[in-house]
Amino acid sequence: MSLVVQKFGGTSVADVKKIKNVARRVAESKKRIDHLVVVVSALGDTTDQLLELARQITSNPPERETDMLLSTGENVSMALLAMALNEMGADAVSMTGQQVEIITDTGHTKAKIRHVGAERVIQELRKGKIVVVAGFQGVTSDGEITTLGRGGSDTTAVALAATLHADYCEIYTDVDGVFTADPKVVPGAHKIDEVSYLEMLEMAATGAKVLQSRSVEYARNYNVPLHVRSSFHEGEGTWVRSEDKIMEKPIVSAVTHDSSEAKVTFLGVPDKPGVAAELFGALADANINVDMIIQNVSEKERTDISFTVNQDDLRDVRKISMKIAESIHAKDTRFDERIAKVSLIGAGMKTNPGIAARMFRTLAENGMNIEMISTSPIKISVVVREENGEKAVRVLHKEFGL
Amino acid sequence: MSLVVQKFGGTSVADVKKIKNVARRVAESKKRIDHLVVVVSALGDTTDQLLELARQITSNPPERETDMLLSTGENVSMALLAMALNEMGADAVSMTGQQVEIITDTGHTKAKIRHVGAERVIQELRKGKIVVVAGFQGVTSDGEITTLGRGGSDTTAVALAATLHADYCEIYTDVDGVFTADPKVVPGAHKIDEVSYLEMLEMAATGAKVLQSRSVEYARNYNVPLHVRSSFHEGEGTWVRSEDKIMEKPIVSAVTHDSSEAKVTFLGVPDKPGVAAELFGALADANINVDMIIQNVSEKERTDISFTVNQDDLRDVRKISMKIAESIHAKDTRFDERIAKVSLIGAGMKTNPGIAARMFRTLAENGMNIEMISTSPIKISVVVREENGEKAVRVLHKEFGL
Repeated sequence: MSLVVQKFGGTSVADVKKIKNVARRVAESKKRIDHLVVVVSALGDTTDQLLELARQITSNPPERETDMLLSTGENVSMALLAMALNEMGADAVSMTGQQVEIITDTGHTKAKIRHVGAERVIQELRKGKIVVVAGFQGVTSDGEITTLGRGGSDTTAVALAATLHADYCEIYTDVDGVFTADPKVVPGAHKIDEVSYLEMLEMAATGAKVLQSRSVEYARNYNVPLHVRSSFHEGEGTWVRSEDKIMEKPIVSAVTHDSSEAKVTFLGVPDKPGVAAELFGALADANINVDMIIQNVSEKERTDISFTVNQDDLRDVRKISMKIAESIHAKDTRFDERIAKVSLIGAGMKTNPGIAARMFRTLAENGMNIEMISTSPIKISVVVREENGEKAVRVLHKEFGL
Repeated sequence: MSLVVQKFGGTSVADVKKIKNVARRVAESKKRIDHLVVVVSALGDTTDQLLELARQITSNPPERETDMLLSTGENVSMALLAMALNEMGADAVSMTGQQVEIITDTGHTKAKIRHVGAERVIQELRKGKIVVVAGFQGVTSDGEITTLGRGGSDTTAVALAATLHADYCEIYTDVDGVFTADPKVVPGAHKIDEVSYLEMLEMAATGAKVLQSRSVEYARNYNVPLHVRSSFHEGEGTWVRSEDKIMEKPIVSAVTHDSSEAKVTFLGVPDKPGVAAELFGALADANINVDMIIQNVSEKERTDISFTVNQDDLRDVRKISMKIAESIHAKDTRFDERIAKVSLIGAGMKTNPGIAARMFRTLAENGMNIEMISTSPIKISVVVREENGEKAVRVLHKEFGL
């Protein structure tokens, strides 16, 4: 018996006409799939519209109430999709996060899934019904409504696929799949047929927006194959699965870029044990996610520590940096928003030395200075000036024959 | 310790500005009331907009999915009102029908309340919080979301007031209270200071739209005083309470009218036992509400039976009337939509004979023919030609010195 979870994002259900299209597609799928669960996001930009309403009322809404408000978006789309399916003769029933028992922690607006019950989903699937589930939302064990943060519907879909032991999870979106680079930047960029979880994680972390890291992590932990594909045509998209299932392993799979980060530098930090721990401990306490970290060799027992954070967090970093600098006896702090991070991703890199050198040489030959470097076994990221970001993507995409 | 339930309808929370006004008013109330529960409807005409979306998808939406869809409207307004209250320093928390435990039967789109738990409401009230509750919605014991039908938010408010033993329940609306007649028809109509549950029930049943019969019935059963008042100014509205609490008892309290009914007549029905039971049994089976029923004296062992139904139900009545007529051996059927029902309401009528005669004489003197008559101890209703309806209201309002 086949069991598949399909997820349709906001652009796929932006209006009545698109909802009907999704319904047709789902009803068509049901003919070849025994058990079908469909996870939906809110219609189009409903979530932003609701947030705007809240913003007109208060600049500081209680997060619990924000969750109450935002969860309504997915409830509308799930009900409308269930209606559209029934209208075309496909027996469907909608369910809220609460009814599905998506049990989360109490971290309102970015709750983490603790457990998925899905007992009622299984009951309805056994009756032959298509189960339409509101994405993005969960409920605490106390019955408080939570949301899973942006991209949370993907996580809902993957979590359900894991719980139900689905054959795979299809993520329908407004692009054809995962690309070797952003097609808006590199006209020659092309769709990747398959990619490993780890590569996809690195791509998501370095700027690819098609999937959120969190849902890929979840898929990897439970070994749920993902199929990222277009909701507008029938063509195959990109399969994301475990590395040992991937036939062809190119050395470099993709070039990603990200202009949303800022660089922070603490200058003249005493080079002694515990300083880095204190610095990054203070940032963690302030709930700030740090991406790349660089510490230069020390001179006269002092060193410089640089790291990147999301630009959205920069204001908070500025606020606490003075206090941190004082506490760790740093001489000064610098902030730089005009940077771009460019990354090469490829599972084959770990067995092919020399990729990094070739990357650095290509950038140098094109007159671009590298400000920071960070590597993992399957990724090399560099920070360059913001204005060089897109050019760097293009020359690297060409150099590595993507 | 005082405990009050306040209910604000859709027009009172139609936009952000109005929500802020409601929040100011609620926060002001909290200064003089110890425990405050606020029930809200959906913003403005949200419910109609959602129904229109559904209608674009299907002419026959499953009622369960309609409830899923419609319940989102109140969830938006409750969250926004809770935010607005917190913004002005009033500690507030919103709750869905599920969280309040408004347990209903499974009659989707017109569910009836079976039981109200309200345990969490009491917990939050004890902490000094204002509890904002989504009106109109409930949940079955199986966790299915239901709605209570149009005007259901009033019922939510009254049911909560009864469960919490509230001192009274305030219904905020876009009019100043209950009037002696529709002010649009009778310019001299004025607000009634107090009225009994029974009078209010008769008024709601005969065309007054300010309160739904169902919520008044609920209030009467649990003896919850209602205060119907304007959400736009501070003035007192109309108190609805038990008759023995009412100081001044006018003979006639109000003149109401209703043009939404149609008259149906079965001609030449055999005058023998069981015929009326068969006729109205068949209508009840088709879920059609019958209002006035008249049976004339019989001639030659045959009689005519007339009754009124809502015009919305007339199509269904036409559909089944042929079959009914055949089954009860009626000679013919007639349908008439061009009627108006005009009613005099007054608790004092039962101890003041001659009101009916005076009413009929007034109408006759003004050249209006009476087609049907129906009375209760505190109400006299007549059916006249539709074009005479408003004139009848005016002359009766004058005749009885309202």
